[in-house]
Amino acid sequence: MQPVLVVGSVALDSIETPFGSVSRVVGGAATYFAIAAAHFTNVRVVAVVGDDFDDERMKIFQNRRIDLAGLQRVSGETFRWKGRYKDNLDDRETIYTHLNVFEAFRPAIPPTYCASPFVFLGNIHPTLQLEVLGQVESPQFSVADTMNYWIEGTPDELRLVLSRVDGLVINDAEARQLSGESNLVKAARIIQAMGPKLLIIKRGEHGVLMTRPNGFFAVPGLPLESVCDPTGAGDTFGGGFLGYLAGCSDVNDEALARAVIAGSTMASFSVEAFGLERLLSVTRDEIMQRFSEFKRLTHFEEL
Amino acid sequence: MQPVLVVGSVALDSIETPFGSVSRVVGGAATYFAIAAAHFTNVRVVAVVGDDFDDERMKIFQNRRIDLAGLQRVSGETFRWKGRYKDNLDDRETIYTHLNVFEAFRPAIPPTYCASPFVFLGNIHPTLQLEVLGQVESPQFSVADTMNYWIEGTPDELRLVLSRVDGLVINDAEARQLSGESNLVKAARIIQAMGPKLLIIKRGEHGVLMTRPNGFFAVPGLPLESVCDPTGAGDTFGGGFLGYLAGCSDVNDEALARAVIAGSTMASFSVEAFGLERLLSVTRDEIMQRFSEFKRLTHFEEL
Repeated sequence: MQPVLVVGSVALDSIETPFGSVSRVVGGAATYFAIAAAHFTNVRVVAVVGDDFDDERMKIFQNRRIDLAGLQRVSGETFRWKGRYKDNLDDRETIYTHLNVFEAFRPAIPPTYCASPFVFLGNIHPTLQLEVLGQVESPQFSVADTMNYWIEGTPDELRLVLSRVDGLVINDAEARQLSGESNLVKAARIIQAMGPKLLIIKRGEHGVLMTRPNGFFAVPGLPLESVCDPTGAGDTFGGGFLGYLAGCSDVNDEALARAVIAGSTMASFSVEAFGLERLLSVTRDEIMQRFSEFKRLTHFEEL
Repeated sequence: MQPVLVVGSVALDSIETPFGSVSRVVGGAATYFAIAAAHFTNVRVVAVVGDDFDDERMKIFQNRRIDLAGLQRVSGETFRWKGRYKDNLDDRETIYTHLNVFEAFRPAIPPTYCASPFVFLGNIHPTLQLEVLGQVESPQFSVADTMNYWIEGTPDELRLVLSRVDGLVINDAEARQLSGESNLVKAARIIQAMGPKLLIIKRGEHGVLMTRPNGFFAVPGLPLESVCDPTGAGDTFGGGFLGYLAGCSDVNDEALARAVIAGSTMASFSVEAFGLERLLSVTRDEIMQRFSEFKRLTHFEEL
């Protein structure tokens, strides 16, 4: 079992969905990733919070396999985001994004983190992602997240990141945008030529499609009766995926497939309640059971 | 191996996609269904063509396990449809629909068809679907296709059909529309209460979701490098699905799962060329190989 380093946002989220609302709950990409990954391995967090991130809020990281040596605490307010989801939970509207202390964030990797074998670069400015890669000693396996904002705004910096990571997590629209190709098979090949051999395409309720050395792997979304809040589902997937992989002795095709199921399992819990609520309460047994539900959902025998 | 009866359209299609165009090629729901199903079992066709449906066009049915005793030939032109697909092949625009001889079509089941154990009611007026059910002696397994047009326009007639069939094939938007429920798990339960215990939800490139007595089964779409023409993919799926099932000794959970893969396999061939071209040339070996590709795409071991 090897540790995973994650860099990304820790935020205070306010969320409105048709099923209710919450205000200033702990969120952010690095948080969702870390809570999910810590169910599988040790996690090292590189992020920043303001002095409004009080002890009560810090509690969510306690009694978990989460190392906070890389969590900077600076004067000012924590990153704040407010979003509102429409009826079908597919579309969301951002009410505000206040970067606050995140605006001047420069990732500083503590010496104890330098030899992290697994690295997840959350969806932040590609230049910051590069700064992290520059401080970690040749990680065994690195995965970056990104989005349309960076694909359009900082294409050169993003290309540098892509040339240096093993994996990339994006959604299908972004895969098409980044490659300039609408067919996903061709799009994947174009993106692989930019660097990352592993491409993980998130498709929301339709599941995940992943390229592997020996061909594609795909899993549909688990049909869920109660979907309450999709916030953080993608980062939760990333945490389950890389956390599971870091616990494997070898990153091979079979481990990668199971890692996708582990990520999908964690994401399926995440969306069942607001914010981190369900992720914080889920047990090892529940995770195992839901993993098996994915098996039942998709299993069939050869002809 | 038991025979399958299909009722639906036989048409002359004109199709434009970003990859080319074809004019007045043989198409229609019953045709796609029959050609796909005949790879697995004997098929009985109930449909109508005009006197423009010449011997050359009839050839596509020859040397296949397709019984045309129920294919009416009447004076006038065959059903004609013209459609145009946009760049991503998701959206299509109907240029024209000329019902022609299909306008006065009343399905007449030949005596040799009356004891058909498997029945597929193509996407036609629910009243015609009911007329077919009235002429077949208590089929073992019946599946109906429908669409938003009938959900909105003839809800009472559709309800009668639903109360009498075992299965329903629709897409996810239609499932939400028919049930008035956006969550697919709840939507499925509501539709099952209307009659069909088996609900097969088509999701285009995202694959298929099916309810079964013992829980959902789902398969993602196979990533295809060359998608040329999606016309008929849904009916081809239906033909592969019900054709495979009719070849099984028992309609149980495992057979249903494999039937979804058989349907998805046939649909994946159908979209690779214009119209019926690929479906007409595909071999038993190619079908077996692609079935295995679905297995490789989705297989993972338990934790």
